[in-house]
Amino acid sequence: MSSLTLPRADGFRMPAEFEPHAGCWLLFPFRPDVWRQNAYPAQHAFAEIVRAIARFEPVTVGVTREQYLTAAKLLPPDVRLVEISYDDIWARDCGPTFVVNDHGQIRGINWQFNAWGELYAPYDLDDLVARKVLAIERTPRYDAPFIMEGGAIHVDGEGTLITTKECLLNPNRNPHLSQAQIDALLKDYLNVQKVIWLEDGVYRDETSGHVDNLCCFVRPGLVLLTWADEDDPQHAISQRAYDLLSSSTDARGRTLEVHKIHQPGPLYFTAEELDETAESDQLNIDFSAGDRLPVSYVNFYIANGGVIVPTYNDPRDAQALATVSALFPTRKVVSVYAREIALGGGSIHCITQQQPKGSY
Amino acid sequence: MSSLTLPRADGFRMPAEFEPHAGCWLLFPFRPDVWRQNAYPAQHAFAEIVRAIARFEPVTVGVTREQYLTAAKLLPPDVRLVEISYDDIWARDCGPTFVVNDHGQIRGINWQFNAWGELYAPYDLDDLVARKVLAIERTPRYDAPFIMEGGAIHVDGEGTLITTKECLLNPNRNPHLSQAQIDALLKDYLNVQKVIWLEDGVYRDETSGHVDNLCCFVRPGLVLLTWADEDDPQHAISQRAYDLLSSSTDARGRTLEVHKIHQPGPLYFTAEELDETAESDQLNIDFSAGDRLPVSYVNFYIANGGVIVPTYNDPRDAQALATVSALFPTRKVVSVYAREIALGGGSIHCITQQQPKGSY
Repeated sequence: MSSLTLPRADGFRMPAEFEPHAGCWLLFPFRPDVWRQNAYPAQHAFAEIVRAIARFEPVTVGVTREQYLTAAKLLPPDVRLVEISYDDIWARDCGPTFVVNDHGQIRGINWQFNAWGELYAPYDLDDLVARKVLAIERTPRYDAPFIMEGGAIHVDGEGTLITTKECLLNPNRNPHLSQAQIDALLKDYLNVQKVIWLEDGVYRDETSGHVDNLCCFVRPGLVLLTWADEDDPQHAISQRAYDLLSSSTDARGRTLEVHKIHQPGPLYFTAEELDETAESDQLNIDFSAGDRLPVSYVNFYIANGGVIVPTYNDPRDAQALATVSALFPTRKVVSVYAREIALGGGSIHCITQQQPKGSY
Repeated sequence: MSSLTLPRADGFRMPAEFEPHAGCWLLFPFRPDVWRQNAYPAQHAFAEIVRAIARFEPVTVGVTREQYLTAAKLLPPDVRLVEISYDDIWARDCGPTFVVNDHGQIRGINWQFNAWGELYAPYDLDDLVARKVLAIERTPRYDAPFIMEGGAIHVDGEGTLITTKECLLNPNRNPHLSQAQIDALLKDYLNVQKVIWLEDGVYRDETSGHVDNLCCFVRPGLVLLTWADEDDPQHAISQRAYDLLSSSTDARGRTLEVHKIHQPGPLYFTAEELDETAESDQLNIDFSAGDRLPVSYVNFYIANGGVIVPTYNDPRDAQALATVSALFPTRKVVSVYAREIALGGGSIHCITQQQPKGSY
């Protein structure tokens, strides 16, 4: 381990999500102050997402000691259940980012984590999740010296990264670092050559604008972007991202092609949903009935041979699934009703973390 | 998994401890009602045992969420630290027993566990340890239908098992099962052809006479037995075991050769040690100053190329180490002062669980 310097210097890079996986990691929901009805509906939605992913690749679910038997009962028997404690379930953000080299070796990055600018506290257990995952997998670990979450970035696996200024330049993350410094750190840790800095993420996204709710790579050169009607506050955000992306070239010099996928809804918290969620002094965020849910269809998970897409019993669902199917002709598209996950502030991409194929 | 029947029927057997290991599992001490001074001295003794084993093979230590950072600080960095919750640290007894087949495949047995006849309660976390270990290793699992602990048995890897009636026929374990039924279960699960039933384990051993504190196989055909002077209550127990063992043949028809190793001490609890141990309503056992510690030197751990032997700053230590060294001429013998572990009721063998080499 003493030979680890920086992923780029060591010849490791972050593969794109559409490259082959060894499996997928998730964490089982339980917090009654985030998940209504003592997390019961979220646990069932979660189990359906797990079943969908498990059709395509091995799934590991981390679960607290208290929820171990509940999870064991609810999840399919071929899912690997490991005890891990955590504050909440966003494996995309508190989990490790895996990097690989040309010899098929794998390592992991342990980002510093501060609960999206201290949206909740404490978050010490979340901050240890990456370390615990990497230990289980015996994967050598890089400890990154700055706050980052997996949801704040997307890569094409060929040297290009997309992020948002709203998130990575937010004073609630790394106020001591300039854009140029963060740009350089991303290049060092993920071994990308080009960082495309969009302005803002999805309207009212409590993560401070994670890019993984706004747009994603379908393949190198092709980006899928959430879209909204002109009278929607999301429209200007998406239009600005569209303009910047479609006038950008990637690390290989390709001009990016940008496809649009219309957002669902808009969707809003109901009074009943909030009433059924426990009070807490650990959350630094408050919701009211009628508050907008920051949902998009691009928050899907690309599995080996599949794409798991969130749906919302919304009139836009069918068109969204058709769009994703057309863009991923070699993968089977599976939809899962994900409102219960959206109530916690994210969707399928946010609660998953792919582990690329590789040996340690 | 649906193809699993019984290890014997499936062609799997328990290898002897002296066969090659993939590694060793242990659990980090923390209980203030078992380990004096809030477990601080036990944690340091434990760390020394871990360091000794890690010289020879990969070590995984399970640790609760509360002790994770303490353990990370105390243990060497090349030790794999995984979060597991448990009631106490006896991985020999609550951990899985691994079995292998001739194709190098590995599976694990999850015994039922009742804390040595309910010596403490609750023990539900201990009862899940085997399952959690096997999940981490993606090892297929047999759920055995009776109460058993790894410390209750020793095998020679060639079809012979040694146990004690004091333990496995104790009404505090499986009162509904006869000796013949338990004999048959051991043969089915561990794929042995012969079970040698000794009478009693070590004097005042709270496990109800675990064989792993009394004697062990050095190799097929050779047993090492703890010994005591004639005026010691241990003498009659050891003499009876000696007579039975040396008049027994093993599964291959060999007459067993029995070597003696003189016990340390006798050693006793001091008033200070008990004063420094927290009160608890979870323990169904009480100790007083002057109570005898059930210690022996055969409670060692055989690692790849090494033997880790407990010592007690006792006049008998040197002779014991010489005996073990002579019996294991191809292995390096490493001694660790283990009184702090003995205060909890066991020694190095009791807190370890070897994982044989194999793929799943």
